Amino acid sequence: MGLPQLVQRLGAPGQFLDPAAVDFVCISDNYYTGKTKPCLTHGLRGNVYFHLEVLCSSKDMHSGVIGGSVHEAMTDCVHLMASLVDPSGKILVEGIHDDIAPVTEHERASVANVEFDIEEYKKDTGIDVLGKKARFLYDSKEEILMHRWRYPTLSLHGIEGAFSGTGSKTVIPAKVTGKFSIRIVPNMSPEAVHAAVRKHVEAQFAKLGSACQMKLTMAKAGNWWYRDPDDPNFKAAAAATVRAHGQEPALTREGGSIPITEVFEAVCDASCVLIPIGASDDGAHSQNEKLDRKNYFNGIKTLGCYVDELAKLVPPVPAPFGGDPVGDKRRNAKRRRCKIDLMAFGCDCLDCQVD
Amino acid sequence: MGLPQLVQRLGAPGQFLDPAAVDFVCISDNYYTGKTKPCLTHGLRGNVYFHLEVLCSSKDMHSGVIGGSVHEAMTDCVHLMASLVDPSGKILVEGIHDDIAPVTEHERASVANVEFDIEEYKKDTGIDVLGKKARFLYDSKEEILMHRWRYPTLSLHGIEGAFSGTGSKTVIPAKVTGKFSIRIVPNMSPEAVHAAVRKHVEAQFAKLGSACQMKLTMAKAGNWWYRDPDDPNFKAAAAATVRAHGQEPALTREGGSIPITEVFEAVCDASCVLIPIGASDDGAHSQNEKLDRKNYFNGIKTLGCYVDELAKLVPPVPAPFGGDPVGDKRRNAKRRRCKIDLMAFGCDCLDCQVD
Repeated sequence: MGLPQLVQRLGAPGQFLDPAAVDFVCISDNYYTGKTKPCLTHGLRGNVYFHLEVLCSSKDMHSGVIGGSVHEAMTDCVHLMASLVDPSGKILVEGIHDDIAPVTEHERASVANVEFDIEEYKKDTGIDVLGKKARFLYDSKEEILMHRWRYPTLSLHGIEGAFSGTGSKTVIPAKVTGKFSIRIVPNMSPEAVHAAVRKHVEAQFAKLGSACQMKLTMAKAGNWWYRDPDDPNFKAAAAATVRAHGQEPALTREGGSIPITEVFEAVCDASCVLIPIGASDDGAHSQNEKLDRKNYFNGIKTLGCYVDELAKLVPPVPAPFGGDPVGDKRRNAKRRRCKIDLMAFGCDCLDCQVD
Repeated sequence: MGLPQLVQRLGAPGQFLDPAAVDFVCISDNYYTGKTKPCLTHGLRGNVYFHLEVLCSSKDMHSGVIGGSVHEAMTDCVHLMASLVDPSGKILVEGIHDDIAPVTEHERASVANVEFDIEEYKKDTGIDVLGKKARFLYDSKEEILMHRWRYPTLSLHGIEGAFSGTGSKTVIPAKVTGKFSIRIVPNMSPEAVHAAVRKHVEAQFAKLGSACQMKLTMAKAGNWWYRDPDDPNFKAAAAATVRAHGQEPALTREGGSIPITEVFEAVCDASCVLIPIGASDDGAHSQNEKLDRKNYFNGIKTLGCYVDELAKLVPPVPAPFGGDPVGDKRRNAKRRRCKIDLMAFGCDCLDCQVD
């Protein structure tokens, strides 16, 4: 059972994530854009992960004894992988860009406001190891952030089944599986991406004229997520950040994918805020991943204040005995939203009047 | 210390491989072309093995958080590997074919005489797993054998440093090393192949416009080997094969590389014969590698008879006390060659007259 199944099971009436009992969701699983400025995150890219298997034999072969007579799976696999993306990062799969939502002026302005230091980012990513020639695919802060958060990307992760050890093995691998994934953004869908990749890979493979067998599998499909931060959950998180850090959080998006966000929102019928507490140089999924002590303690403070801010926001409304807890919760949620509206603009809806 | 260094050390006067004491060399490290017909092998391809390292960072990166902003080592590596060879097996490195010796009529005739069953070879290689679509790069016996023995080939073995496990890891690997090797034939040289590959890879890498660092290393260089089988060593091995198997051996070449052959010949100042005792389906370097019991016992018989045949061939000529054993050995070797010639054509050289 994976986390989505667990969350779904716990979302039943009377369970820990009973939608009648959950008002807001918070996930802390992403990063600042720099090292000190706190932020709240309201968008994630999705991720569609593919396994591209090529088979040429039932067993590995000797490249001297047999090489020259057989179609080699590695050759096909490497040609197919090279056909997916060029070295400038451009995805070469036809039609993949069709569904991308046009970038709004608001989005451009939002990115322009983010504090981000390109030279620091060279150290964070480790590309400073390339010395004076170290450079990103794009030169400006805005382009770099937009290509991390708002545009799709395709990464080639590796090949399973080929020789991956140290040294020099003279093998023709029998079956190799290329691994690659595409980060998707509004309004791309995993289904459309899958269809486009399949069409591309099948056409490219046909061109190779190979006797090998090729099989494409979509191994994972996590959708993108986007929430308008003008929401009580975000307001509570922002107030908490001010109390813990002494400054307003930046509003950011994130290039990574946290597919459980959507599941929590759907199961709990509640909005989610992402409150990162890690710095940009924490090195997620890399060697020597770390969390600064300062971020650890400020994170504890922020999350404590966040719960306190939520408590201020939400008046406890117990479900009447024998009543309809889900219905009550929905009414309460509406009431809370109205309360927020009331504080800002006034409200005269029926629910509020009843309250 | 590797085997070449060991052989060289043992080649000193008084040691096990003292050239004064070694008359002939035999290696049993290759295979029949089929499963029953014994053979003697008089040619090997060489192998030049390359490591193609591409570096994009000091540490692995998260493909979501960072993907879209950095030049990715895997993308460059896969593009460079795809530029080396096409799916039909054609090597795309410019100039690589320049030094290949023209194929002689004798070579063509020799290959035409080899017993070789294409359908059996499908089972031996394991490509029969592809079912009815299973086919080789070439359709005829002659082309298949010539491309295994007499033409160069390039195989892509794998990539070190990329994600090679099962499952779906969303990593941008920091440093990947593509492994590939080229089997070389007369009159290619490892040095010329190295120079051509370096020129090709550097030109291709420049075209990519990447910020990554690329480094090509020639990890191994084993030369091809060819010996005219009209030689007493081969005649002894042939006579032994007839005694053990009841049939004349085929004369074959081999696509694999046994670089120690050249070292033994040079250190011992003696000719080498390759006496394979394994069948074509033994699966060298593969899963479930095996040796048939029949071949094992017939191999023992063949090698015993071979020593007996050599003993008949070589009259023991002890070095005179205080004499020059190496000089004696060389004279003896010349004398033996003349003896063989004498048997066939008559000989009146001084050495033979002295004997």
